[in-house]
Amino acid sequence: MRDSDAETRALISRRSQTLGPAYRLFYDRPVQFVRGEGVHLYDTDGKSYLDAYNNVPSVGHSHPAVVAAISQQAATLNTHTRYPAAPILDYAERLLATHSIGLENMMFTCTGSEAIDLALRIVKFNTGKAGIVVTANAYHGVTAACAGISPSLGTNSPLDPGVRVVSFPDPPIGDSRQETETFVASVSEAISDLERSGHGFAGFVADSVFSSDGLRPDPVGLLSAVSKLVRASGGLYVADEVQAGFGRTGDSMWGYERHGFEPDVAVMGKPMGNGMPIAGIAVRADLLRKFGPDIRYFNTFGGNSVCVAAASAVLDVLEDEDLKDNSRMVGRYLRDGLREQSKGFPFLGDVRGVGLFVAVDVVDPIDGRTADPARASRIVNGLMSRRILIGASGLAANTLKIRPPLPFSRENADQFINEFTDLCQALS
Amino acid sequence: MRDSDAETRALISRRSQTLGPAYRLFYDRPVQFVRGEGVHLYDTDGKSYLDAYNNVPSVGHSHPAVVAAISQQAATLNTHTRYPAAPILDYAERLLATHSIGLENMMFTCTGSEAIDLALRIVKFNTGKAGIVVTANAYHGVTAACAGISPSLGTNSPLDPGVRVVSFPDPPIGDSRQETETFVASVSEAISDLERSGHGFAGFVADSVFSSDGLRPDPVGLLSAVSKLVRASGGLYVADEVQAGFGRTGDSMWGYERHGFEPDVAVMGKPMGNGMPIAGIAVRADLLRKFGPDIRYFNTFGGNSVCVAAASAVLDVLEDEDLKDNSRMVGRYLRDGLREQSKGFPFLGDVRGVGLFVAVDVVDPIDGRTADPARASRIVNGLMSRRILIGASGLAANTLKIRPPLPFSRENADQFINEFTDLCQALS
Repeated sequence: MRDSDAETRALISRRSQTLGPAYRLFYDRPVQFVRGEGVHLYDTDGKSYLDAYNNVPSVGHSHPAVVAAISQQAATLNTHTRYPAAPILDYAERLLATHSIGLENMMFTCTGSEAIDLALRIVKFNTGKAGIVVTANAYHGVTAACAGISPSLGTNSPLDPGVRVVSFPDPPIGDSRQETETFVASVSEAISDLERSGHGFAGFVADSVFSSDGLRPDPVGLLSAVSKLVRASGGLYVADEVQAGFGRTGDSMWGYERHGFEPDVAVMGKPMGNGMPIAGIAVRADLLRKFGPDIRYFNTFGGNSVCVAAASAVLDVLEDEDLKDNSRMVGRYLRDGLREQSKGFPFLGDVRGVGLFVAVDVVDPIDGRTADPARASRIVNGLMSRRILIGASGLAANTLKIRPPLPFSRENADQFINEFTDLCQALS
Repeated sequence: MRDSDAETRALISRRSQTLGPAYRLFYDRPVQFVRGEGVHLYDTDGKSYLDAYNNVPSVGHSHPAVVAAISQQAATLNTHTRYPAAPILDYAERLLATHSIGLENMMFTCTGSEAIDLALRIVKFNTGKAGIVVTANAYHGVTAACAGISPSLGTNSPLDPGVRVVSFPDPPIGDSRQETETFVASVSEAISDLERSGHGFAGFVADSVFSSDGLRPDPVGLLSAVSKLVRASGGLYVADEVQAGFGRTGDSMWGYERHGFEPDVAVMGKPMGNGMPIAGIAVRADLLRKFGPDIRYFNTFGGNSVCVAAASAVLDVLEDEDLKDNSRMVGRYLRDGLREQSKGFPFLGDVRGVGLFVAVDVVDPIDGRTADPARASRIVNGLMSRRILIGASGLAANTLKIRPPLPFSRENADQFINEFTDLCQALS
């Protein structure tokens, strides 16, 4: 037992006293981190941990370029968007240029939840309908409206009555065309049900890599097929890029881009400011034509000078350090390595992913299919003991979630694969 | 015409192209600010403007102690609340100690909107009811749920069906006891109406100084009387302290404290991090007992290390510079001066306020009562030409809103009174 364990236990007890029961911690034995740099976090004893989990500090913890931008701007001016300013426009124009051509306006919020909430308001306002289709274990945020379309929050958190969920074929069909057709058919059924129920169909909202549904980047093109149906049904398509965006997939800047279509609204968040609270939507200009004047949307902190400076520096670093390419190449290297090693362990199932977002299913070693969340948890906590951070997700919480900051190197991947393999041996 | 005017016009045109029609600017001739320091903002020509409007940079623009805290923390670590950490607990405990004893837990969000949205979820969850009572021109934020209880957003922004509004006696009765009784009677009627409609009564939400209702800090004790009725009716009281909190009123740290009662939830925002996106609620622990485990509330950026460092520095500065006392004393000095001067101008009506939050009604000079929003706008823009920033608000937009950063000095107040008087002379 480390010296700092007693201290951490005291801190956790104080924490539950002060922050209350809504706050959860990661890991059986949580660790206090006091410093971050690149792909490493450091505890109170100065020990380093390889961060293979955090996607928010996407260009690396405490990246000097982002830190400098924040410090300089905070010392100069931090204000809201009711005064004209060039930096927010420079940033918005630059960001819009990375999006599909139809997305002409940027609106800024502080969190992905606020951005999804705003997207829902725009979609419902423009269609005059209330019905939203989401995936079976979708997570889209924590405002009342976001929670209402987030079945992953569990049955205690009520879904909005105008929500219908669609599932992925389980087990996967294995054939891309058939998988796409089956999924599109369930969306079609959900839309019909919404029309019959009187809610009407307003829109489809999906995380472009289906993170909380256990990560399903494939088949590529599936979302394009869905978008055609959504348009044909009079609805709007909201691409939730909070997880997939800013080069995470390696293939492209945006998850929808990989699937080859244009959404009506793209929602951005988490990695946008490398940890600073900035988020927003890129949206078709015509969808704001009436919404803008009618609905007085003003977000006091949304697009504030300091967060815009941070976000702008994030784009610089993404380009300067070729992080999208790194995500694609190191991500593939990591998946290949894990897939190779997984053959030796019957409790490891499908290894899948895209860029530096990798999922490994943990399953019953006999049938090779039944979810084993208990062993998944042992792996997550076992890696933590080896000072490597990952998480678990998916409908059955048996999918290992490996999603490091984008500067993760081949050497980091090698270390990860070695420790992972060694741990799996110990758990065999 | 200043040299920079053409540049500003070009910027404004680019802005409407990029950000779309939801974004509004202050003033007939908006000005680009590029630097802030204390109670001053500076434009592209280096000219200084006296800021008598912005309450977000509450301890002063670019306050060195806050800037240092942000810079240092950003360079060290910026992470979420799923790892145990001492600074957020130190801050939360310190903040809770300033609140009434019944508010035992702190939950962090990024914006006041998110905090109100969370408060509404907690209130509805615990009461099992949907009905909310707010004031006639209330503003509580921009998420779908917040907009649904914000009549000030105008008739194009739909109110939630379970919302009832209560008005202030107009004209004011002038007698505190009678005014309180009349107001409490309208809340009682609204509650009965909610019960009869089937929504049931969940709670009462009010800005403790009624900013968007034209600023009504008096009669003191009114909200205490409302809170008794709310409790007796089985509802919960949400004190929206986004405007009134953090010493703005000068009398006390919190607006509800002035009125002498304990709310069930207190919502904090704007000045909390001097411009950094941090907000939250102080809440009765028993209201989270079931809500916490049932509803998985996790706000990725809420309570992140950098924003907590900024917020903590704000508390330091509030104490070190006695800003609450400054707000009380300079606020009274400013009101006395404006009241004295206003006698010479029949188009200036009631001068009221609390601490450094001052309202001056602009009215028809003949009857001394009818709202004159056009002249109010001329005063706001006239002061802007004299490089002094204020705004207008209230149901009829005829109330001058004077609400500077808290380090506003007597000398700043003298300058304000002189320029204001001079302008009123010119507009007479």
